[in-house]
Amino acid sequence: MVSAHNSDGSAPGRPARPVRYELLTLGDELLLGLTANGHLTFIGAQLGRRGALLQRNVTITDEADAIEAQFRESWARADVVITTGGLGPTCDDRTRDVVAAVLGQKLVFEESIKRAIEERFARFGRKMTDNNLKQAYIFERGEVLPNANGTAPGLWAEQDGKVLVMLPGPPNELQPMFIDQVVPRLAARGLLLDRESYVQLRTAGLGESALETKLQPVFDRAGPALSVAFCAHQGAVDCRVSSPSGTLAPSDLDRIAGECVALLGDDFVCHGHDSLARVCAELLRAQEKKLAVVETATGGMLAQAFTEVCGACKFFAGGVVCCSNDAKMQLLDVPECLLLQHGAVSDEAAVAMATGAAETLGADYALAVTGFAGAAEAAGSPNGNPVGTMFIALFSPAGVWSKKLSYPGPRPTVKVRAVNAALDWLRRELLRAQRGQATPVRRIGVMQ
Amino acid sequence: MVSAHNSDGSAPGRPARPVRYELLTLGDELLLGLTANGHLTFIGAQLGRRGALLQRNVTITDEADAIEAQFRESWARADVVITTGGLGPTCDDRTRDVVAAVLGQKLVFEESIKRAIEERFARFGRKMTDNNLKQAYIFERGEVLPNANGTAPGLWAEQDGKVLVMLPGPPNELQPMFIDQVVPRLAARGLLLDRESYVQLRTAGLGESALETKLQPVFDRAGPALSVAFCAHQGAVDCRVSSPSGTLAPSDLDRIAGECVALLGDDFVCHGHDSLARVCAELLRAQEKKLAVVETATGGMLAQAFTEVCGACKFFAGGVVCCSNDAKMQLLDVPECLLLQHGAVSDEAAVAMATGAAETLGADYALAVTGFAGAAEAAGSPNGNPVGTMFIALFSPAGVWSKKLSYPGPRPTVKVRAVNAALDWLRRELLRAQRGQATPVRRIGVMQ
Repeated sequence: MVSAHNSDGSAPGRPARPVRYELLTLGDELLLGLTANGHLTFIGAQLGRRGALLQRNVTITDEADAIEAQFRESWARADVVITTGGLGPTCDDRTRDVVAAVLGQKLVFEESIKRAIEERFARFGRKMTDNNLKQAYIFERGEVLPNANGTAPGLWAEQDGKVLVMLPGPPNELQPMFIDQVVPRLAARGLLLDRESYVQLRTAGLGESALETKLQPVFDRAGPALSVAFCAHQGAVDCRVSSPSGTLAPSDLDRIAGECVALLGDDFVCHGHDSLARVCAELLRAQEKKLAVVETATGGMLAQAFTEVCGACKFFAGGVVCCSNDAKMQLLDVPECLLLQHGAVSDEAAVAMATGAAETLGADYALAVTGFAGAAEAAGSPNGNPVGTMFIALFSPAGVWSKKLSYPGPRPTVKVRAVNAALDWLRRELLRAQRGQATPVRRIGVMQ
Repeated sequence: MVSAHNSDGSAPGRPARPVRYELLTLGDELLLGLTANGHLTFIGAQLGRRGALLQRNVTITDEADAIEAQFRESWARADVVITTGGLGPTCDDRTRDVVAAVLGQKLVFEESIKRAIEERFARFGRKMTDNNLKQAYIFERGEVLPNANGTAPGLWAEQDGKVLVMLPGPPNELQPMFIDQVVPRLAARGLLLDRESYVQLRTAGLGESALETKLQPVFDRAGPALSVAFCAHQGAVDCRVSSPSGTLAPSDLDRIAGECVALLGDDFVCHGHDSLARVCAELLRAQEKKLAVVETATGGMLAQAFTEVCGACKFFAGGVVCCSNDAKMQLLDVPECLLLQHGAVSDEAAVAMATGAAETLGADYALAVTGFAGAAEAAGSPNGNPVGTMFIALFSPAGVWSKKLSYPGPRPTVKVRAVNAALDWLRRELLRAQRGQATPVRRIGVMQ
């Protein structure tokens, strides 16, 4: 069996050769575009964090012939094959039978799984139909991955120097099973690293190439044993430092990451994968401050960024989504004359909306986003602002400011970028407040 | 070449054998889970609507060897191969070269594409770097699919009785190119139907099996030439009627669909693929009424459902997202004593929130959603309501009512189901208002 570890098994090391992972996602609903292939996104990211690049993902129909042919091919080529779906109780759940036949494995009935399924039905007060018993059949030479959130258990088998992992289709069953049971098993066999393979620094405010230029002195000092990868999202660029050869120990990587953080200043967002909204939420909680938001063109997206953070009530005072001038006046006391003079998409309107949201909701901070995300709205602009013109405003204990943004691109992109710009602005202001610094940015001066 | 048409080319017909479509999606960012594979969802749905089931989707890395091996395999097996990505200007954009080599095609420089790229750069005031010229190379024996939204054109080639379609990676470039240029070309060659292959009825309020039972008399009358498929989403079940043998003409399918609609009554949502929010929006616009929304646990999701509909300002008065009692009292005049007596997650609070939203925002209709979507919130419930307990309220010119819902499942599912239940309730009330009927549902009676 190949390995993702050094022989001592401790540090990220050079494998004999990369472990070949293939993922088979089964189901006509994926091929008909009825469901997004979230298993690829989830499993690909989980493997990537532990130093393995998924080599291939194949999505095929539920037909037994298609499953058999594809499984044979993947099993011949890969070191680890992961399948998702097709383990359920109904007649189109054929994966277990087909795979067992290819591997020459017997399926045996496991009494304890039958009892677990019966108990689950009893707990929800439903009657168990007989087809559910199909899910109690497991590989004779294999292991069961118990399913805490559904009836079909996962299956694990090792054979021909390879590993087979079969997972149920529903994401809320698959994801905890993968993290809690599959990742530790793969790591124990040296097929994944037992820690993250890289140190990730999430940054905002710099493009990919500007970020690279800024950090180059650190990379130069570290030498050729350091591997650096950049990954741009909407509103953030991640920088991942790793040592594929294993020459640099994890503690070296942490030290190098620390040097990067020191150089980045407030352009550093967080280690790891937290969203801008989550980072803002932590700063707000630490400072015991409350936030309000008000938005037009982004239509609830800004509020959602915060309400998705667990325990949002602790820091989120509330949000207002308004399209019409009436709503701005009624909910937030934005003066009608201001909207008539400057238009609802203007620096002045954004500042008045943020101020109104903070005051009405009794919040310490407020974000406002107003603009033209699509062509229909921009057509009516009294100021001739083109599509993609967005104004964001930030109300804080230190004052209230606005910024004009201009984004090319399709409507969904414009919305995401405006939301991220607002989140990043709040984050920087909260960092300054934490340090007790005055705010240097005064784009259009303080209202009120 | 195989065909998806009858020989007369007019009606949905039985092909000689099904056309085999394969989709190759290229890019490490997909395999690392950094980007969702939206191309599969989009292209799979587009083909499905025109009578073709995508047979296979393979996602592989950007390496030339991997691309070559996979393209060879897919080209040998499929009738139509579609590739996405890898057509851009940078060094990891290798698809064009690799595929040309496998097909034995020369790449030739096309002056008109060079000019189009230069003009695009000039229009955005950017300098064109030389690596962009790579995108002006096309197959010697092939066609160009012009790109209205980016620099890399798509490529089309027919060879060995097969079709190759190469599309650029960005969705806002790929999607219009596929709909406007690829679908008509495929239909003209008999590889896709020139109309939708099925008539789709979107329904709400009935589960899959109840829906089948209700419509069975219609299906029985139509006989075995009719094929019926059901597809359950969150909040809606689609019923698709088609005639794979071509025995039933399109006009027969329309008549059968009409019989289904008559049986379904208000459980019928729409023909095709419109969302519940879009259907509500059309009813509100037709009746010249305005809607307001207020939500706690769904945190902006309900507002977003409406603001995503084009021209939302015409019918959407505004939305409020509140977590705290303070926000409900300040923005919507919900009495504090009511929240203290009944709790913020109660029939009474939902009714007061909907009423407050309608009155504050001057709307004719209002929806309120409050509840415990996750465990953290439910832990503090004074009424002992478990996770998944949601209250929705509907304010209308005829009165205001609330409903208690109880959903098992993970937090995102609970939120989506509550939003869909609220949307469907509004839709039914708008249908009744359109007919001038009184509202029969009086779950907890009219407040005020």
